[in-house]
Amino acid sequence: MSLETLSENRSFGGTQGVYRHKSQATGTDMTFAVFMPEIADHTRVPVLWYLSGLTCTHENAMTKAGAQQFCADAGIAMVFPDTSPRGEGVADDEAYDLGQGAGFYVNATQDPWKPHFQMWHYITHELPELIGDNFAVDRDRMGITGHSMGGHGALTIAMTLPERYKSVSAFAPIANPTQSDWGQKQLTAYLGKDQQAWQAHDATVLMTERGFPGDVLIDQGTSDQFLDKLKPEALAHAMMARRQPGQFRMQPGYDHSYFFVQSFMADHVYWHAERLL
Amino acid sequence: MSLETLSENRSFGGTQGVYRHKSQATGTDMTFAVFMPEIADHTRVPVLWYLSGLTCTHENAMTKAGAQQFCADAGIAMVFPDTSPRGEGVADDEAYDLGQGAGFYVNATQDPWKPHFQMWHYITHELPELIGDNFAVDRDRMGITGHSMGGHGALTIAMTLPERYKSVSAFAPIANPTQSDWGQKQLTAYLGKDQQAWQAHDATVLMTERGFPGDVLIDQGTSDQFLDKLKPEALAHAMMARRQPGQFRMQPGYDHSYFFVQSFMADHVYWHAERLL
Repeated sequence: MSLETLSENRSFGGTQGVYRHKSQATGTDMTFAVFMPEIADHTRVPVLWYLSGLTCTHENAMTKAGAQQFCADAGIAMVFPDTSPRGEGVADDEAYDLGQGAGFYVNATQDPWKPHFQMWHYITHELPELIGDNFAVDRDRMGITGHSMGGHGALTIAMTLPERYKSVSAFAPIANPTQSDWGQKQLTAYLGKDQQAWQAHDATVLMTERGFPGDVLIDQGTSDQFLDKLKPEALAHAMMARRQPGQFRMQPGYDHSYFFVQSFMADHVYWHAERLL
Repeated sequence: MSLETLSENRSFGGTQGVYRHKSQATGTDMTFAVFMPEIADHTRVPVLWYLSGLTCTHENAMTKAGAQQFCADAGIAMVFPDTSPRGEGVADDEAYDLGQGAGFYVNATQDPWKPHFQMWHYITHELPELIGDNFAVDRDRMGITGHSMGGHGALTIAMTLPERYKSVSAFAPIANPTQSDWGQKQLTAYLGKDQQAWQAHDATVLMTERGFPGDVLIDQGTSDQFLDKLKPEALAHAMMARRQPGQFRMQPGYDHSYFFVQSFMADHVYWHAERLL
């Protein structure tokens, strides 16, 4: 698979790049960003995946999360994928929370979404292979995190594929989408009305049924304007019920913005680094 | 003077706010951002001014420079002003580097700019007074920095008013605008054709004539795409010629983007903190 370089900027001694490729999973051009620390000039490094939230592209976290400095320091790569396929001929919806920019990290089985909205496969198979082939990363040492819809993606992916993702964390994840306005609409659209198909994409359900073999870090702001949609208490309860190793931190006064994300990015990057290095 | 709060977000234990007020200096509404560290709940803190570059508003550095974590840690406030007056009835130019978003931190004496483009007065007098009246900052401990056009502003302001700005630094400043495409056009438009009036707004001229009583920190990327307009070598030569205390650091591989700025933000914030605390 070939890769087009859209931009590369020196950042904290490493390189922040933006790349485009033709995705077989989505049948579209896909853009993503990668931060490579300087040490990767000499050795393959672990890689931390950062999945973004509704309306985001590869760019939001790359410019606003402030992760590069910690990745540079810890010596790990970070990948910032897009949140959906995009472009003409790709289905979309007028709502900000369905269609382009809102892939929800599932493989759609329903029209009109099915032809392109194969984000689960894209994130967990195609893009890791592409990254492994083109960057000095060690695919046996992968961690995953994300914000909001991306926190949902990170948790559901890690709990489903724990042999591939050695560490997981999340910032204000959509924690119980089968019971939320952020979830029921999208899972119906992408996966159909049969709620059985939704269960594999609900972090609270997965936490109740199987949990994660390692410890889990979740941060949630108490002043988050979307608490009613995120449903952090459902996931926290499920973690406690199974005595899941890890921590669910309620952070006083923080909202849903990247000011929240960047405030705790150091903790998350070093959390993953300790478990991947 | 009254202040309207547009947004406040918790950030690294402190508060990142955006505010609007009616400016007497510019005769317009002006928007600016302030980061206040948590310690300011208990005591007045030093304040570091960050002046932005061409096309920027208060928002660019606030979201992309990654300064808040270091200001929170050091216990200093940071102010992010806009780069010009804006709005209907305010003169503008089709070029990105003249008019709105490109105030160049001067008091315009020429029409059509004169009525509103009084950024020097706004930045050095009106806004500090407003900040001092409304935030827990210590106006006797002010430092100033900036990027590109904002680096020009920081250096010229600090060298002109050293009794008010105790510390100064700059990221890739427009260093010699009287000799540059980034300068000659704007100084002609704002100040007129008599080049005598330009000299007070050229960091290299001021460095040659008077310097700064403290030490000066300047960072410049060697891969900056605007080196021919910034003219770092002119300022570096002027610093060396007078043996100005401080350092002019050429950073290998860095360009003009905020990936450069954020890579060295820690150094700059702590540089100012050491001189202001």
